[in-house]
Amino acid sequence: MTSMLAVRKAAPTPGVELAELARPQPAADELLIKVRRSGICGSDKHLYLWDEWAAGNYPTPFTLGHELVGEVAELGAQVQGFAAGDVVAIESHIFDGTCRPCRTGNAHVCENLRILGIDVSGGFAEYAAVPSRLAWRVPPTIPLERAVLFEPLGNAVHAAMRYDVSGQPVAVYGCGPMGLMAIAVAYTAGAYPIVATDVSAYRRTLAEQVGAHLTVDPSRPSVEQDIVDALGERPTVSLEMSGHPTALRQALRVSANAGKIVFLGIPPKPITIDLAEEFMFKGLEAYGVTGRLIWDTWYRTEAFLQIHGDLLEPLVTHTFPLRDFEDAMQLVLSGDCGKVLLDVDG
Amino acid sequence: MTSMLAVRKAAPTPGVELAELARPQPAADELLIKVRRSGICGSDKHLYLWDEWAAGNYPTPFTLGHELVGEVAELGAQVQGFAAGDVVAIESHIFDGTCRPCRTGNAHVCENLRILGIDVSGGFAEYAAVPSRLAWRVPPTIPLERAVLFEPLGNAVHAAMRYDVSGQPVAVYGCGPMGLMAIAVAYTAGAYPIVATDVSAYRRTLAEQVGAHLTVDPSRPSVEQDIVDALGERPTVSLEMSGHPTALRQALRVSANAGKIVFLGIPPKPITIDLAEEFMFKGLEAYGVTGRLIWDTWYRTEAFLQIHGDLLEPLVTHTFPLRDFEDAMQLVLSGDCGKVLLDVDG
Amino acid sequence: MTSMLAVRKAAPTPGVELAELARPQPAADELLIKVRRSGICGSDKHLYLWDEWAAGNYPTPFTLGHELVGEVAELGAQVQGFAAGDVVAIESHIFDGTCRPCRTGNAHVCENLRILGIDVSGGFAEYAAVPSRLAWRVPPTIPLERAVLFEPLGNAVHAAMRYDVSGQPVAVYGCGPMGLMAIAVAYTAGAYPIVATDVSAYRRTLAEQVGAHLTVDPSRPSVEQDIVDALGERPTVSLEMSGHPTALRQALRVSANAGKIVFLGIPPKPITIDLAEEFMFKGLEAYGVTGRLIWDTWYRTEAFLQIHGDLLEPLVTHTFPLRDFEDAMQLVLSGDCGKVLLDVDG
Amino acid sequence: MTSMLAVRKAAPTPGVELAELARPQPAADELLIKVRRSGICGSDKHLYLWDEWAAGNYPTPFTLGHELVGEVAELGAQVQGFAAGDVVAIESHIFDGTCRPCRTGNAHVCENLRILGIDVSGGFAEYAAVPSRLAWRVPPTIPLERAVLFEPLGNAVHAAMRYDVSGQPVAVYGCGPMGLMAIAVAYTAGAYPIVATDVSAYRRTLAEQVGAHLTVDPSRPSVEQDIVDALGERPTVSLEMSGHPTALRQALRVSANAGKIVFLGIPPKPITIDLAEEFMFKGLEAYGVTGRLIWDTWYRTEAFLQIHGDLLEPLVTHTFPLRDFEDAMQLVLSGDCGKVLLDVDG
Repeated sequence: MTSMLAVRKAAPTPGVELAELARPQPAADELLIKVRRSGICGSDKHLYLWDEWAAGNYPTPFTLGHELVGEVAELGAQVQGFAAGDVVAIESHIFDGTCRPCRTGNAHVCENLRILGIDVSGGFAEYAAVPSRLAWRVPPTIPLERAVLFEPLGNAVHAAMRYDVSGQPVAVYGCGPMGLMAIAVAYTAGAYPIVATDVSAYRRTLAEQVGAHLTVDPSRPSVEQDIVDALGERPTVSLEMSGHPTALRQALRVSANAGKIVFLGIPPKPITIDLAEEFMFKGLEAYGVTGRLIWDTWYRTEAFLQIHGDLLEPLVTHTFPLRDFEDAMQLVLSGDCGKVLLDVDG
Repeated sequence: MTSMLAVRKAAPTPGVELAELARPQPAADELLIKVRRSGICGSDKHLYLWDEWAAGNYPTPFTLGHELVGEVAELGAQVQGFAAGDVVAIESHIFDGTCRPCRTGNAHVCENLRILGIDVSGGFAEYAAVPSRLAWRVPPTIPLERAVLFEPLGNAVHAAMRYDVSGQPVAVYGCGPMGLMAIAVAYTAGAYPIVATDVSAYRRTLAEQVGAHLTVDPSRPSVEQDIVDALGERPTVSLEMSGHPTALRQALRVSANAGKIVFLGIPPKPITIDLAEEFMFKGLEAYGVTGRLIWDTWYRTEAFLQIHGDLLEPLVTHTFPLRDFEDAMQLVLSGDCGKVLLDVDG
Repeated sequence: MTSMLAVRKAAPTPGVELAELARPQPAADELLIKVRRSGICGSDKHLYLWDEWAAGNYPTPFTLGHELVGEVAELGAQVQGFAAGDVVAIESHIFDGTCRPCRTGNAHVCENLRILGIDVSGGFAEYAAVPSRLAWRVPPTIPLERAVLFEPLGNAVHAAMRYDVSGQPVAVYGCGPMGLMAIAVAYTAGAYPIVATDVSAYRRTLAEQVGAHLTVDPSRPSVEQDIVDALGERPTVSLEMSGHPTALRQALRVSANAGKIVFLGIPPKPITIDLAEEFMFKGLEAYGVTGRLIWDTWYRTEAFLQIHGDLLEPLVTHTFPLRDFEDAMQLVLSGDCGKVLLDVDG
Repeated sequence: MTSMLAVRKAAPTPGVELAELARPQPAADELLIKVRRSGICGSDKHLYLWDEWAAGNYPTPFTLGHELVGEVAELGAQVQGFAAGDVVAIESHIFDGTCRPCRTGNAHVCENLRILGIDVSGGFAEYAAVPSRLAWRVPPTIPLERAVLFEPLGNAVHAAMRYDVSGQPVAVYGCGPMGLMAIAVAYTAGAYPIVATDVSAYRRTLAEQVGAHLTVDPSRPSVEQDIVDALGERPTVSLEMSGHPTALRQALRVSANAGKIVFLGIPPKPITIDLAEEFMFKGLEAYGVTGRLIWDTWYRTEAFLQIHGDLLEPLVTHTFPLRDFEDAMQLVLSGDCGKVLLDVDG
C-alpha cells in the first residue's frame, strides 16, 4: 500500500489537517524513512497557529515535523553507506554544502539553508524522504524514545558546550524543554554551581531533577541578586534559553565581567540593549545558537544519550499516536507539559 | 621646584582649568612619572564638556589624561624592576588584582576597575604618580611620538586581534582615530580585503592610507550591498569602531553567517537589535572590547610599533604644548583633525 | 613555643631526617601557615631516594612537602586580603610575576620558577612561611582531607580540561593517583567513553570506581586494539599520566587522527618517537602539563571538590602522623597504596 | 586526439619514464582537467628515487604530480558547480567524507586518505581526472604561475596560521621552499620579529627577501643563543620546516615557556626527545601539519595570493616544459634551486 497519514499545513491559515498522501519516492540522493517517533518543537506551535512569523516566511502546502527517528525503508539510486532497516535520526538543517559557511565548518548556518518540515515535507508522517547526507545512524543501545531527542538535544549540546562550562558557575534562563536539556548537558559537563530561572514552580522542580543546583523565580524583584547569591558569585557562562526580553537583559546584567553568553531562546521581536554598559564595559562575549554543529554536535549528543539519557526521563511527559496530533498540539498550546512526542507507527 | 602645570577638572561643570599644583609624591608602590607626551582621547571630550555620562559617573576634582608616556623620575619605597630615567607608557586601567576576572586573565574588566585621568589624577600634567604595576617599559627604538599611542593603539590591537583576521575579509565601521588604528592593525595582520566605512571623505582617504583596500560611504542607501560588493563576499570579521547605532546594525546585517563582530565604538544610548534575525539565525559571535588584555595586548602592540609604527604617520595630525590644551581641545571638538597629542615638556 | 617538627633533606644523600627546627618568621609578603594536612607526591620519592634527577638539580638542606593545607597563623607586614585563622591551600609554583609567561597567563611556567618543598622549605613541617600570593582560601564546605588534594588534583584538572573532553571518547594511560584523578575529572566533565590502562588489576579496579567505563591491561600484546575496541573507536583526547615510554607511544599510535594528547606523566629519560608517522601524518596536537593554570585551574578544582569530592574517596588509602613520615614513605615506595596523606597536627 | 604525455612511475624501481598514455575519462563525480602548470614537491624526489619510504608504501604504476592548476576540459555526469574552461587548483588529499575526522572539520587527516599523484594518477601529465569535490576555482586575478602554488602554499598557511603569530616573536627552522613560504605567511600575518635558520647562505638571503627580519646559521655552536639574541627573547611560536632532527630539538629547547611549536618538515626517521625537560616542564604545545584545512586554509591562501603573491617571486627559480621533467628533477636533486615548476602546456 502506497498511501500514508501526514500532518499537513494545507493552506496559509491556522490549524493543520490530517491527510492521506501518496508515500514519497526517494530521489537519487535520498533515503525513504519509515518514521517511528517524532517530537513537537516550539516552532511547530507557530506553524500551527500560523502567526505573523510563520505567515510571513513560508509557502504552503507542506508536511510538518523536523524532529524524527525512523528506519531506512528504501534507498535512492546514488545513496551509499546506508542499508534498509538502519535506524536513523535526521539533521533538520538542509545545507547546500557549497557556500563558505558550509565549506568552513558552519553548515548549520548555510547561506541557502532549508528546514525540514517547513521548506520541505517533514516527519509528522508515516514516511519521509530526506537527503541521505542528513541521516545519522542510531546505535541499538539508544531506544527510540531517546533517539527522537537527538535534534532538540543537539541544540542544547551546541549551546551548553559552546563555551567551556567545566567547573564554572553557570546561569540558565528558562526551563522549558530546551532549557531543561541545557541544564542536563551543563550538569553532566561539570558545571558547578548551576542556577536556573523560570516563573513556573513546576518547571523549576524539573530543573532541579535534571541537574540545577539551585533555582530562582525571575518574577521576584530581587532576581538579579538572587542569582548571584545562589551561585555565590556572578556566572561566567550564561545560557539564555527563554527568548524573553527581560531574561535576556538579566543574562547580560548578571553575568560576570569577561563572561560568555549563549542565546538560544528566540525573542519574538527586536529588543533594546544598553550595549555599552551591559556588554562592552563588561567585556562580554556572546554567541547565537542555530541548530547543531554538523557533525561535531551529533557525536557529543550521542555520547550524552549513551551515558546520561536517563537524566532526560522527567522531560518527556506525553506521547500521542500520530493520528491524535490535534490533541497533542492542544496540550502543547496549554503549556501543561514537558516534551511531547508522537508515536508514529504505534 | 615642586609645583607643576596640570589640566584640571576643578568643579562639576563644563570646561577645565590650567592649574599650578604641587608635584605628587609617589606612594610606596608608585612611580613618579615626568610626563613627556600625552594623547587626547574621545572620552576626554565628554569629561571636558561634562555631559550627562561624565556628570553622572565621576566626582571632581581630578587631573585629566590617560594616554601618556614619560620618564621615571622617582620610585616609591617598595617598587622593584624600574630605575630612574626609564621611559614608560602606562596602562590606564587600574585593576585590583584580586577579583576573579583579574585572577583569570581579564584584569581589563576588573570588578573594581578605576581609570587613570578620571578616578585618579592622570597624565595631562607635568608629573603623574601611578602604581608601578601599570607601567610598561618602552624600548629606545620607539620614539615618544609613537610610544604615546601605546594605550589607544592597544585598544585597536585588542579589537583587531580578538578573532583571527589573517586571510579573512574584514569590514571596519568608522574611521576615527580608533577605526584607523584598527584598519592598520588588521592590515598588518593579513586581513584581505578590508573595507572601511565613514561618512567623511577625508577619513575615508586616511583609511586607504593606513591599509583599507576599499572604502564605502555609509550615507548611501546601498551601503550594505556596497560593502559586500567591495569585498566580493560578506565579511567574516567585522570591527564596529564608530558607536553609531546605524553602523552597528549594519555590522550585524552585513556579516557573513558564522561571522565574528567586535564592538569597540561606544553607542551613546541603548540600541534596538533584531537579535533573532540579525544575530542568532546567522550564528554570529560578538565581543565587547574594554581596554587592553594585560599584558598580552601590550606585547603585540609593541611589536606593531617596532615594525609598522610609520603606518600611523597620517593619523597624528597635530601636537600642542600642554599649556595650549584649550586650543587642542577646541580643535578636537571641531573634528578637523586626526589624533591630537600634547607635548608636555616641549 | 617556637620550635617545630620538620621532614628535612639535611644532606645530599638518600633519606630524610625528622628535625626540630625554629618556627619560621614570615617575611613582609608572606603568610605563616600552621600546616594541617600534607600529601606525599611521586616527586617526593625522588627527593627521598636522592636519585640522579634530584641530586643533579637541587642544593640541600631544605624541608620537603609541596601539597598542603593549613591555617594562617601570622601575616607579614605587607600582606593584604588574609586574616589569621583563614584555611588556605598553597600553589606550589613560586612564580616571579615579571617574566613574559607570568605576564601573559602562564605563570605556571614562569621563566624563574621555584618549587615549594624543594627550592624553598615546604609543608612537611608544623609551620611553613609562604608568599601570600600563593595562598588560596579554602571554603568551610571542603574538609581538610579533600582540601589537601587541591594541588595534585589541580594538575589533573589542568590535564583533563586542556582540551574539550565533553562527549568525547577519551583514553587515560596510567592509573596512579594522578591518573585516577584525571579519570574522575574527565568523567565529571562528560567524557564518554573513558578507557583507562594500568598493569595493576588493583588500580584498574580503582579506575572503574572513579569513572572509567572500561579498563585495559597494557601488558597484553593486543593492547592497542583493545583500547579501540573498548571505546568503539579511536580516542579523540588522550591523557598520558604514566610517564612510561611504552604507554606514551601507545597514546600517539592509538589516538584518532586530529586527536589531542596531554602529557602529564614524566618519562624518566629521553624517548624515541616516530614523529612523522605517529604525530604529524595523524595531524595530532600535544600539550605538556606543568602545575596548574594560575588561578583558572584553582577555580575549577574548587568546583570539582564542592560537588564531586566524594568521588576521590577510594583514592586516599592511608594517613600518617607527620612524625611517622618514614613509615609513610616506605609504604609509598612499596606501591601498595593510593594517595598517602600526613596528618600534621594530628 | 586522445593520447597524452605523462610522467610515469612504471615499475617499482628508481626513475620515471615519459609515457604516451590514453587521456583519462572522468568518472561520474570527476572533472577532466587540462593541466597548465605543475609544481615539483620534495616528496616527488622520494618517489623518483624510490627510496625505502616510497618502496614500502606504494604500488606501481602511477602518474606523479600533486601540485597543479589547469582548466576544466570535461565534466562527469553528476558534477555540479563547474563549467568547462574554469581554472581550478586541486586539493591533493582525497578524503572519503564519511569518517569522524572528515565529519568534524579534519578531512585533511581522513582515516582513509589517498594522495593524488601517488595513490591515484596525478598532475605531471597533460590531463588528469580528479573528483570534483577536490577542485578550487581560481579567480582570474591570480596568474597560473601563482595559482600552481596553492597546494604547497596552503601547507605553509596551515602551519603559520595554526597558532596566532600576530605581534609575536617567531622562529622558522629551515628555509627550503616550504620554510620560505611559511616566513612570507608569518610576515604578512604580523609576526615580529621573525628569525629564520638555514645552513645555506643562499637560502638565508632568500629568507630575508620574503620577510625574515634576521637569519641565523644553525651550524654555529652558539645557534640557540643566536636565535634568542636575534629576537631579543625566546620565540612564542616556532615553525619547524626542515625535518632535521637537530633543528627539531633546537625548536623545543629555544622556545619560550608556554610556546607553540608547529612541525611540518618530515624527519626521515624516529627521533629522540627529552620530553620532560624540553616539552613538559616548559608547558609547550605542538601541532603536526598534514596538508591543508579543507577549505578554511584555501580561503586564506587565496587571500594571500591576491595581495601578497609577489612576495613569492624570489622563490620560484625555474620552470621546465613537461617533456623536460628529467632535467627538472635533476636540478631539484642538485639542490641549486628554489621552487621548480613544470609548464605542462607550454
